[in-house]
Amino acid sequence: MKTNIPQLLSQMTLEEKASLCSGLDFWKTQPIERLNIPSVMMTDGPHGLRKQGKEADHLGLNDSVPATCFPSAAGMASSWNRDLIRQVGEALGQESQAEDVAVLLGPGTNIKRSPLCGRNFEYFSEDPYLSAELAAHHIQGVQSQGVGTSLKHFAANNQEERRMSVDAIVDERTLREIYLASFEGAVKQSQPWSVMCSYNKLNGTYTGENKFLLTKVLREEWGFEGFVVSDWGAVNERVDGLRAGLELEMPANNGIGDAKIVKAVREGQLDAEVLDQAVTKILEFIFKAVEQRQADATYNADEHHALARKIGQESMVLLKNEDHLLPLAKKGKIAVIGEFAQNPRYQGGGSSHVNPTQLDKAFDEITQLVGDQGQVSYTAGYDLDSDDVQTALVQEAVQQAAEADVAILFTGLPDRYESEGYDRTHLNIPQNHQQLIEEIAKVQPNLIIVLSNGSPVEMPWINHAKAVLEGYLGGQAFGGAVADLLFGEVSPSGKLAETFPMHLSDNPSFLYFPGEKDRVEYREGIFVGYRYYDTKQVEPLFPFGYGLSYTSFEYSDLQLDRQQYSDQDKVKVSVTITNTGKTAGKEIVQLYVSDHESTVTRPQKELKGFAKVHLQAGESQTVQFTLDKRAFAYYNVDIADWHVESGTFEILIGSSSRDIRVQQSVEIQSTVELPITIDRNTTMGDITTHPTTQQLAKELLERSGMGELFDPSDDMMSAMVKGMPLRAMVNFGQGKYTEEMLAKDIEILNQAFVNNQR
Amino acid sequence: MKTNIPQLLSQMTLEEKASLCSGLDFWKTQPIERLNIPSVMMTDGPHGLRKQGKEADHLGLNDSVPATCFPSAAGMASSWNRDLIRQVGEALGQESQAEDVAVLLGPGTNIKRSPLCGRNFEYFSEDPYLSAELAAHHIQGVQSQGVGTSLKHFAANNQEERRMSVDAIVDERTLREIYLASFEGAVKQSQPWSVMCSYNKLNGTYTGENKFLLTKVLREEWGFEGFVVSDWGAVNERVDGLRAGLELEMPANNGIGDAKIVKAVREGQLDAEVLDQAVTKILEFIFKAVEQRQADATYNADEHHALARKIGQESMVLLKNEDHLLPLAKKGKIAVIGEFAQNPRYQGGGSSHVNPTQLDKAFDEITQLVGDQGQVSYTAGYDLDSDDVQTALVQEAVQQAAEADVAILFTGLPDRYESEGYDRTHLNIPQNHQQLIEEIAKVQPNLIIVLSNGSPVEMPWINHAKAVLEGYLGGQAFGGAVADLLFGEVSPSGKLAETFPMHLSDNPSFLYFPGEKDRVEYREGIFVGYRYYDTKQVEPLFPFGYGLSYTSFEYSDLQLDRQQYSDQDKVKVSVTITNTGKTAGKEIVQLYVSDHESTVTRPQKELKGFAKVHLQAGESQTVQFTLDKRAFAYYNVDIADWHVESGTFEILIGSSSRDIRVQQSVEIQSTVELPITIDRNTTMGDITTHPTTQQLAKELLERSGMGELFDPSDDMMSAMVKGMPLRAMVNFGQGKYTEEMLAKDIEILNQAFVNNQR
Repeated sequence: MKTNIPQLLSQMTLEEKASLCSGLDFWKTQPIERLNIPSVMMTDGPHGLRKQGKEADHLGLNDSVPATCFPSAAGMASSWNRDLIRQVGEALGQESQAEDVAVLLGPGTNIKRSPLCGRNFEYFSEDPYLSAELAAHHIQGVQSQGVGTSLKHFAANNQEERRMSVDAIVDERTLREIYLASFEGAVKQSQPWSVMCSYNKLNGTYTGENKFLLTKVLREEWGFEGFVVSDWGAVNERVDGLRAGLELEMPANNGIGDAKIVKAVREGQLDAEVLDQAVTKILEFIFKAVEQRQADATYNADEHHALARKIGQESMVLLKNEDHLLPLAKKGKIAVIGEFAQNPRYQGGGSSHVNPTQLDKAFDEITQLVGDQGQVSYTAGYDLDSDDVQTALVQEAVQQAAEADVAILFTGLPDRYESEGYDRTHLNIPQNHQQLIEEIAKVQPNLIIVLSNGSPVEMPWINHAKAVLEGYLGGQAFGGAVADLLFGEVSPSGKLAETFPMHLSDNPSFLYFPGEKDRVEYREGIFVGYRYYDTKQVEPLFPFGYGLSYTSFEYSDLQLDRQQYSDQDKVKVSVTITNTGKTAGKEIVQLYVSDHESTVTRPQKELKGFAKVHLQAGESQTVQFTLDKRAFAYYNVDIADWHVESGTFEILIGSSSRDIRVQQSVEIQSTVELPITIDRNTTMGDITTHPTTQQLAKELLERSGMGELFDPSDDMMSAMVKGMPLRAMVNFGQGKYTEEMLAKDIEILNQAFVNNQR
Repeated sequence: MKTNIPQLLSQMTLEEKASLCSGLDFWKTQPIERLNIPSVMMTDGPHGLRKQGKEADHLGLNDSVPATCFPSAAGMASSWNRDLIRQVGEALGQESQAEDVAVLLGPGTNIKRSPLCGRNFEYFSEDPYLSAELAAHHIQGVQSQGVGTSLKHFAANNQEERRMSVDAIVDERTLREIYLASFEGAVKQSQPWSVMCSYNKLNGTYTGENKFLLTKVLREEWGFEGFVVSDWGAVNERVDGLRAGLELEMPANNGIGDAKIVKAVREGQLDAEVLDQAVTKILEFIFKAVEQRQADATYNADEHHALARKIGQESMVLLKNEDHLLPLAKKGKIAVIGEFAQNPRYQGGGSSHVNPTQLDKAFDEITQLVGDQGQVSYTAGYDLDSDDVQTALVQEAVQQAAEADVAILFTGLPDRYESEGYDRTHLNIPQNHQQLIEEIAKVQPNLIIVLSNGSPVEMPWINHAKAVLEGYLGGQAFGGAVADLLFGEVSPSGKLAETFPMHLSDNPSFLYFPGEKDRVEYREGIFVGYRYYDTKQVEPLFPFGYGLSYTSFEYSDLQLDRQQYSDQDKVKVSVTITNTGKTAGKEIVQLYVSDHESTVTRPQKELKGFAKVHLQAGESQTVQFTLDKRAFAYYNVDIADWHVESGTFEILIGSSSRDIRVQQSVEIQSTVELPITIDRNTTMGDITTHPTTQQLAKELLERSGMGELFDPSDDMMSAMVKGMPLRAMVNFGQGKYTEEMLAKDIEILNQAFVNNQR
């Protein structure tokens, strides 16, 4: 039987209502026994459940019950695999049901503005379309199990430095096209039960008090139906937050916030209706959770581990493979080097830290896969707790490498290098890892580097290695997944969801990250990630969308259903992909759109579609894409809407952002005429080129005596006049053209638009 | 006898006063015969007088009386020669006196934000210190002759595109450190008679109506005593302009603006006192001009031409000189190629266009210099009026080049490529020039390129040439000056006053230039020119301050008078320069300051001193620099003042911005404690590290229960707590720490600062 929320609400006292607006403790909602309103639990974990035992600590960061640890989002995103991420979501939902968790606090879909951000491993991508697509499927997976999600951290929380006080200054077009878009697609497609506001301020207001964000954009424009919860400790002024659309404050602080709400209603500073709406949202959530609760739910930990291995395989990106060194044959002497092979770095630090159900070690998995055909040795090579080169460890590693046919070196970033709570300050791997690479390269040409890290690193050492496999933070089955890839059990199929820069200084936010004091200006604007590298023509180390395979793919037969479209039409695109190699493999087909010419600054190209296809050797498949207005639009702040400028666009389809295989141009006609208002400072160029005023403008210029200056053979003169405001007819009119004449002419020009619209 | 201005003012009617606030015609001030107030003339021309004959045209752009055309500012700046620029100023002043001109409208000291700006040839540099120093000496030179200058275009007029309507959005620190600083030094050092407001808006307000700019900064802060004149046609709302500090409107428009002033005073919208002040400034100017008028002044055109040749020599920059190809011997077969050798491009288009007294042609000058010892041939190579390759011209050039011992190719940008009124859209030289270089290089290894252009070009062809001489727009004696350099009559001594980028896309403003519609955001902020290339680690084609010589210089014995200073001390630096080559030459010694560590973003280094020294072969000279607070300071917007952060700075002295020869670190101690105010969102990190609150903060954290989290061995936990605002003690306090306790504690913390200051 569905609970009658309005009736329930009508039975509640003001104090009871307010009490529902914050938690019972660190993780649970407030119950009201008198009215049979139960308490339900929320728990961290975009890539695994982090349900704390009874004794939650002060900040809720101590150990948790065992749960499957999937790759963190940076890795999962590299799969570009919507279905697989949905399956991970389903598994997370099942584990939540088994642990009586009503809401899993994730996924995190913040944009990777800088590779330095300490929490990047929890986020998907530098691209909002990719990020939103993957978040949507994660959410759909979890919620299909009757468990809610909380899409976080909304919004513009792109650094850890001073994250609870910093004010992110972001212009609206950038917000709309980049930072909000990453949430927008997820909210619209998957309707998460909850959205979590971030810690930071956005354009002067804490996101948890930001009505533009929480009400106008999230609810009114995107149609979000769930509740907004504060990030833990994010509440600044409780009543302002409630007014802006922040329903639930977490964690509990013994009713301090609730009391402020009661007081504000009593004193008439807060409309009781606002509180009622918030409580309604919270009650709807609680009873939805109760209704969908599966009391006897369990899950199969082994199956989930197998799923973790599967997505682990697709989460890794083969960056380099000289001489086809990979896949390795299961024979000969194989030197496995690096403590990460025994003591894997498979997840990041902070609120997403999971207590895994089991943990694969790469060394064990490689040994098992190679079997009796080969000899696998191991040596640590470096001390994980230090950056110092330890000569004895290096010597032993060099000796083992020298004696082997091939060396697999596990390296990357130790735990202390990246975590929630602080940002990195450089992109290097530790000195002792670098040194080890260099020393081993001297004795072993067949050197394979396997990286464990949550965010890009610089690779000044890359010429020392024949192969580099980016393992990201691969989850509890990382060891098995990496063995599968190295020995060709499956072909690598991950591609980068972010640009790897040559140097940190190449990053677009470099000069403005992490800002000064409590202010960070997003001065690079829409030029985030590959949008910057491509437009600014900066060569990356590895571009967005890049990743190698053990097989090869051919792109052919790009087709559009028409040649010309209006901005209301759907553009249907198809392309055929053929596996032209000798083994089965998956290809991530990427569709980008490029605007040939625009009156506003636009990125060189933008991702607007992708598909992952599995093809046997020799097999072909036709992939379909449907593009709507949004694929061609920019956000026009003047009309507060997405706008397509009439003209030619290029559809680019390729294997990475810098490996476009087929392309075709397409004409799009706008159905919207942008309004213009003419005043004394409107330029002559604007009125002489606008169709509506062209003729009038000509007459006007003749009348004022400026017409004679429009000498098309004189570049300077015509440019000067084009750039003149209308009032220049007064400035240069020697008294013959007056302010009164100008006022009249402006009226005539504006009237032309009015007449036009009739 | 000095005119009694207050008395004169008291005799004037309101209408008469207003009438003085705009011109008589295009170039002259309004006379008032009744009161014996004469009319005086202003004329364009930072690098030469452009006095129009009686029939000034509509925009004042037709031919003018003959005058010496010196190199335009881009070239003059490359001399880095304060004395020589002062001499040019003196010559300009003399010519003005001879032509009865009271004010020369220049110099232009706008910063070169983008190499695309069509008017860059009229400006000095991308660096405000260099720009201000040179402008100051130009002004001092002109004004020493009893002729005024009008420092222009004030301010943030860094593009031609929509220059009369565009709104430049520039943050205050950037304004102060870059765009205003370029004017500030010139105003403070040389007190120009006039400052000319620019056409554009700055942060929403036309500069001609911008009280911050024209009154607060210019008059109150910098002590400017002259009058402000509008750029021709820049007046938008006349009365707003007057109120903001714009005294004189130009050109005349038959009293339309004056009538508005009269009406505003009559109707009480404008304080009569404001008008009186403006009229006083204008009267002061007119009578100063009258008093300093030399009725029988003349000038020696030949001497001025010789001066033009001298500064022409120093205005050119030798960019490349492989195998010491230059200087050339005066013998053998010399092929002079390129129409510029006969038809020089020696100045830019627009209001600065001068009608020269005579004009040197490079071909003639080379022929004369080589004399009978060699054979000099000439061929056009390209058509100046077209970009198309003309095969016949190329073939003839290739043939002449093949038969010669050396080819000197004159190339660059034709007139139509750069001008007042429009910006460039790329940095290439014309296709037919490029093609010519490539074809000649195939037959002649000894290829010398001489460039004529007002702003940087890309040089994809540079490997084809052994030598490249950047000639800029070298004035009427360009031909002679270039011959002098090519044949070693003098050693090149110019250095770049701007960065030559490898590609246009490398420029810091690339993504934001020229803005969208009527808005251009200076998003690169303080990172203009080498400040960007150095900090962002982008390799330029040729760096700021770069230029080759025929001799070599050694830097030694860098000395500071002390090791530690306060920000009130003068830092005295000396360094010894030795000419270690075989010929006499001049070296431009550059001093940069670098801040080792800063809480605000700072450029990697900034120019804070320079000197040009002339040394015979083997000669040494010790150069002295005195640095004050400003050399180490950034503009702190919170305290609205320049601020030096205590710490270590590096003094770098070198031959270019990327060729530092000697350096030394220095400690500067600030005498200013920056005020901080503590509120609920001040971070725990801020109060635990500030000396004044350190101890209190520790007690506070213990009391609130947060102290236990400060585990220095746990990176994440300590970073998290450091980043928490004080109110987090309530958020995470489980009710044990209340809002009341927080309020009390904030009071205690703030009180600590009050107590400190007692």
